[in-house]
Amino acid sequence: MESNSVIVNPWEVKGNVDYNKLLDEFGLKRISPALMKRIEKNAGELHHYLRRGIVFAHRDLDKALDEYKKKNLFLYTGRGPSGPIHIGHISVWLFVKWLQEKLGLELWFQFTDDEKYLFNNLSMAEIDKWLHENMLDIIALGFDPKKTHFLIDTKHANLMYPEAIKVAKKITFSTVKAAFGFTNNFNVGEIFFTAMQAVPAFLPSIIRGKKMFCLIPHAIDQDPHFRVSRDAIHKLGFPKPGSIQSVFLPGLGGISKDGKMSSSTGQAIYLTDTPNEVKKKINKYAFSGGQNTIEEHRKKGGNPDIDVAYQWLTFFEEDDKKLKNIYDDYKSGKLLSGELKKILIDKLNLFLAAHQKRRKNAVKLLDKFIYKP
Amino acid sequence: MESNSVIVNPWEVKGNVDYNKLLDEFGLKRISPALMKRIEKNAGELHHYLRRGIVFAHRDLDKALDEYKKKNLFLYTGRGPSGPIHIGHISVWLFVKWLQEKLGLELWFQFTDDEKYLFNNLSMAEIDKWLHENMLDIIALGFDPKKTHFLIDTKHANLMYPEAIKVAKKITFSTVKAAFGFTNNFNVGEIFFTAMQAVPAFLPSIIRGKKMFCLIPHAIDQDPHFRVSRDAIHKLGFPKPGSIQSVFLPGLGGISKDGKMSSSTGQAIYLTDTPNEVKKKINKYAFSGGQNTIEEHRKKGGNPDIDVAYQWLTFFEEDDKKLKNIYDDYKSGKLLSGELKKILIDKLNLFLAAHQKRRKNAVKLLDKFIYKP
Repeated sequence: MESNSVIVNPWEVKGNVDYNKLLDEFGLKRISPALMKRIEKNAGELHHYLRRGIVFAHRDLDKALDEYKKKNLFLYTGRGPSGPIHIGHISVWLFVKWLQEKLGLELWFQFTDDEKYLFNNLSMAEIDKWLHENMLDIIALGFDPKKTHFLIDTKHANLMYPEAIKVAKKITFSTVKAAFGFTNNFNVGEIFFTAMQAVPAFLPSIIRGKKMFCLIPHAIDQDPHFRVSRDAIHKLGFPKPGSIQSVFLPGLGGISKDGKMSSSTGQAIYLTDTPNEVKKKINKYAFSGGQNTIEEHRKKGGNPDIDVAYQWLTFFEEDDKKLKNIYDDYKSGKLLSGELKKILIDKLNLFLAAHQKRRKNAVKLLDKFIYKP
Repeated sequence: MESNSVIVNPWEVKGNVDYNKLLDEFGLKRISPALMKRIEKNAGELHHYLRRGIVFAHRDLDKALDEYKKKNLFLYTGRGPSGPIHIGHISVWLFVKWLQEKLGLELWFQFTDDEKYLFNNLSMAEIDKWLHENMLDIIALGFDPKKTHFLIDTKHANLMYPEAIKVAKKITFSTVKAAFGFTNNFNVGEIFFTAMQAVPAFLPSIIRGKKMFCLIPHAIDQDPHFRVSRDAIHKLGFPKPGSIQSVFLPGLGGISKDGKMSSSTGQAIYLTDTPNEVKKKINKYAFSGGQNTIEEHRKKGGNPDIDVAYQWLTFFEEDDKKLKNIYDDYKSGKLLSGELKKILIDKLNLFLAAHQKRRKNAVKLLDKFIYKP
């Protein structure tokens, strides 16, 4: 999606994303109420991301649920380790964790260290450092060590490269040019990379010795990869992977629900931030939908729809009633901007305290998570 | 080199190759008498390929000899396993074997199974079969198992892919397009592949923990790979590899010293051919420079310069005196075409009998040759 200075591709997200337009352009479907019912029936509950349209789009989710019934479904998601993990990254993974827990699914978690080396100005040593740090954070999110397998592109290359060339053989430069906007000045590793990203969508079928269905929950910017590789994967004799897309957590400075949280502005909340850092950042940077003075706010009320603290609570406050009360109170002027921010700060710090505690234990679990061929 | 229907690139060699033109186009130097003296001094003798201009061109061979003095030189050559090995393939390797033996050098031998999969209409199973067969033939040529290390692209990917992306980052699509004549319809694996071919030129430096100089003897069609990767390898902090180029053994039906022996016509001599097959093929297919009748031949004499049997003897008959006698006798009409062919047939069958005997023993040595990281 690249129009009116809106860019959404795996390496850049810029501008106010129009998700409806993106659905059309990417050829995705909105998750229907009927599909939600099916998920709820299988999972025993409905994740608030689904209820609230945060996880909103899909490809072949219906087929994925059919295959789930036949015990023939696995999950695949990933992370490019080029820096610390911030709050904006984890919503997809929290949803994946929920799916794993509720449906008892195997998860293959890819770390695209090759991608981050090829597309960024980083050394392999720096990327290795972030790989290690990121793995700890991802383990700390609470995935099941018995059912979760980390694949690291450069470290599992014996397993992945021979499969990647099979995908690569089915994808021309013309195709990646059209899908990603590459030019002739892109390096030959960047051009090849999408083939590596395709591998975890069918590698488990090879490892388990049967053709399994893959469901890929991912942020919507990653979709072009799978649009490109679905056909290639199918030509190799494996089912086309299904996928689930989520909207982006708005950036702290973002003025609407659109736009991805950017760590490059230095205004992101990292999973390693202290309670005081979180408090300072939210108070200083979170775009407010409140009025300029308390008097005016009490009189006119705030606008939760453009208030970043409120938007973040739609991601972090699972209780619909509580959220509704916050919405109403803010809109009526009963709840002040500072008070709204305080609710978010407390919520985040509660989450981060538990996360950071689990993270300390994660080193011990690391070996269990890394896939042993 | 692509003009007047002459094509010389790593995947196609067609037409009458003008080696002088190729030197200019590729930016190679002819091996000078002074350089030959240096080789002779170090090796204790001068290989007949050097004496006869079969191994004729180079890049930085002088530097390679400087580094040899410092015990800082290794050899690298390779094979793409897409079919049986024929007589036309082995001249470079016989020269490499001589270099290894005379200079006591380590040799890294790359098998580009990924390349053959990406550029040909072959399954990985077929390529795996040829990989195995080709390795046996290469072992049977007599390399030193203690100093020779096989690298197989898909099987050593853990070692090679992380290095290949470093090369890939320095090479754009524009560059490979210009060097290899690729179009936008080439697959993304083909576009990436040259990065894998570059790896053995510096991997030993990483493994041995010191910056070593690499000398790559290869048939001249492979040169574009190293023209592309030399700069990339240098940017990664390793010495630019040197190289030695050889002319092609003419095809059986070839009318001059030019043109590569082609196995696609079904007129190649394979290393597994029986004495009778060799006899039949040479007698039936080897282009003759003799006259139409015995009488005419006795009177006018033959033309060894276009006679394939004679040309092949320049590769296989090491003794300069013997070769000179054959040349003179053929030219004068004393030696008939059938007699000339008989000399070649006997020479080849002697070589193949010994080769096939060694080949039976090669399976036992296979494990010693495959590099263990």
